[in-house]
Amino acid sequence: MKSIIKFENVYIKEYASCVGKKESEGPLGSCFDLKEQDMRFGEDSWEIAESELSRRCIEILLSKSNVKGEDVSLVTGGDLLNQCIASAFALSESNIPYLGLYGACSTCAEGLIVGSTMCEKMGKDVVSFASSHFCSAEKQYRFPLEYGGQRTPTSQFTVTGCGSFLLSGNGKIKVTEGMFGRIIDGKITDANNMGAAMAPAAADTLMRYFKETSTSPDDYDVIATGDLGVEGFELTKHLMMSENIVMGDAFTDCGIMIYDVENQDTHSGGSGCGCSAVVTAGHFCRLLEKGEIKNMLLIGTGALLSKISAFQGRTIPAVAHLVKLEALESEGELIRKLI
Amino acid sequence: MKSIIKFENVYIKEYASCVGKKESEGPLGSCFDLKEQDMRFGEDSWEIAESELSRRCIEILLSKSNVKGEDVSLVTGGDLLNQCIASAFALSESNIPYLGLYGACSTCAEGLIVGSTMCEKMGKDVVSFASSHFCSAEKQYRFPLEYGGQRTPTSQFTVTGCGSFLLSGNGKIKVTEGMFGRIIDGKITDANNMGAAMAPAAADTLMRYFKETSTSPDDYDVIATGDLGVEGFELTKHLMMSENIVMGDAFTDCGIMIYDVENQDTHSGGSGCGCSAVVTAGHFCRLLEKGEIKNMLLIGTGALLSKISAFQGRTIPAVAHLVKLEALESEGELIRKLI
Repeated sequence: MKSIIKFENVYIKEYASCVGKKESEGPLGSCFDLKEQDMRFGEDSWEIAESELSRRCIEILLSKSNVKGEDVSLVTGGDLLNQCIASAFALSESNIPYLGLYGACSTCAEGLIVGSTMCEKMGKDVVSFASSHFCSAEKQYRFPLEYGGQRTPTSQFTVTGCGSFLLSGNGKIKVTEGMFGRIIDGKITDANNMGAAMAPAAADTLMRYFKETSTSPDDYDVIATGDLGVEGFELTKHLMMSENIVMGDAFTDCGIMIYDVENQDTHSGGSGCGCSAVVTAGHFCRLLEKGEIKNMLLIGTGALLSKISAFQGRTIPAVAHLVKLEALESEGELIRKLI
Repeated sequence: MKSIIKFENVYIKEYASCVGKKESEGPLGSCFDLKEQDMRFGEDSWEIAESELSRRCIEILLSKSNVKGEDVSLVTGGDLLNQCIASAFALSESNIPYLGLYGACSTCAEGLIVGSTMCEKMGKDVVSFASSHFCSAEKQYRFPLEYGGQRTPTSQFTVTGCGSFLLSGNGKIKVTEGMFGRIIDGKITDANNMGAAMAPAAADTLMRYFKETSTSPDDYDVIATGDLGVEGFELTKHLMMSENIVMGDAFTDCGIMIYDVENQDTHSGGSGCGCSAVVTAGHFCRLLEKGEIKNMLLIGTGALLSKISAFQGRTIPAVAHLVKLEALESEGELIRKLI
């Protein structure tokens, strides 16, 4: 069954990214709009800090695009916290209709697909964002920070960051296709090896997409998974190879890109909703806008576990949503960009 | 700004509802497709029980409609558990693309809007569902069941239930409009009075809807909020009255309807994602299909709190999403229904 969603007239009009200290010190540090050195973002708790991070990111997005909140018809958003409270509180004073999503670390790609569909349907601007925060995630999923727990080699470092996108009928970058992933359970039970849990989902979505479009990795300038990390990335390449698909040089992973994994002590790399969101909004969107890359596939990867499911010894099902972004090409499009 | 989403050609082809023991003993007990007396649904934990509840509900939906899973292009779903694990595990062996939503108890209405939009966009069948389970919710949000905690008078009783809908290009009931709610923070901090927290959000969405459509409560056969409970329902009527809108006899609340609040010891009534889902799928959809009511507004109401936000003394922001359902009317529609 055909499952690709095609968009004719949806654009990223503006994008914004906010990160914490560690991300600002990484290889992509210069890309981000806001680099906050205070992990509390001036707030009393890690959870409120994450809300403030998202609130500021959306504020910057609207400011950069010269759009007022009242002109936005919908915000789609999500995060990793229980009941997605970071996103809810971030929007609680905005007066903009809100659609909450949960796709674990795939939320950025999920939001771009849902947001683009809603933008097209409503014919109005839609904001899509996703966030995560290292401290709120550690506290919730792993150990209190004060405990100073030892991290296993395959563990990942939750990105403190929020990426947001203003979707509109005109803009700088085209959103042309989306594909929702299926839940794939690779029977991994180690909550410190989420890359292995997510690799089969990433491979499943990529295989379905290449098959349905009759394309191959060579047709794309960038194919970026969200946060597979070092192990998950290698596993995905192997899984693709088992179907005779060589992922090639265009294949990369936002989780590997965001940190200097050798020198920043982030083990397998970055993770979290914010990881693919800030790398896309901070880095790839710039490349697409400048025309340095012509197209890219973003495959948001999410591990659908909770602390309870991990404690109960359950496996970690995963999902991977794909969105295709393209640089403007035709003269008409370039003119529209200037409108 | 206009914010109503209109659907021209989206129908509920089939609907299914599964509930637990207490719901089966309530006033609507005879409406539901499956009434399971074992609160564990044959499983080892409350969380797996909730997944099994949703899995069975979708199985019944597909069986009733004679549609195979492989012919469904997308499932949208959500629940109240941390990281929505009930929904993720329910779908983990389905092979159907999955879009996770989080709207607290508003998820049923949110899913009907998102699902209808996706159904129209993709031109294929979409399943939308929402679930909750009394035991998994008590364990997560309140106290261990074994503790036997005393419940305050304004507290609500989480419905054990899942409601699911098959959205399609033809069917028994029309989905004609949707409206996403704004997050409204009424500054309530009592996690045992979610009705009061949600009432301002319900009133906000209703006011925006009546204003934008230039209609009044008299234009609808049923206006049902999701789970305001006794106090929240009364508060909403008062809030509407302050804008000179008399809600009238059509106004009701799924949380009040599902239990005999006098005799079932459920205090302020039912709550949870499953509440509006099973009352809509079990009761209202039947009335619409039979033509006993011509139209209805479902206003899913969600309290966007978590245990952490409650412990931190934060307020409870809320959101209310609206969806309009209509009975088939024209001959053409009635013929299509038979196709």
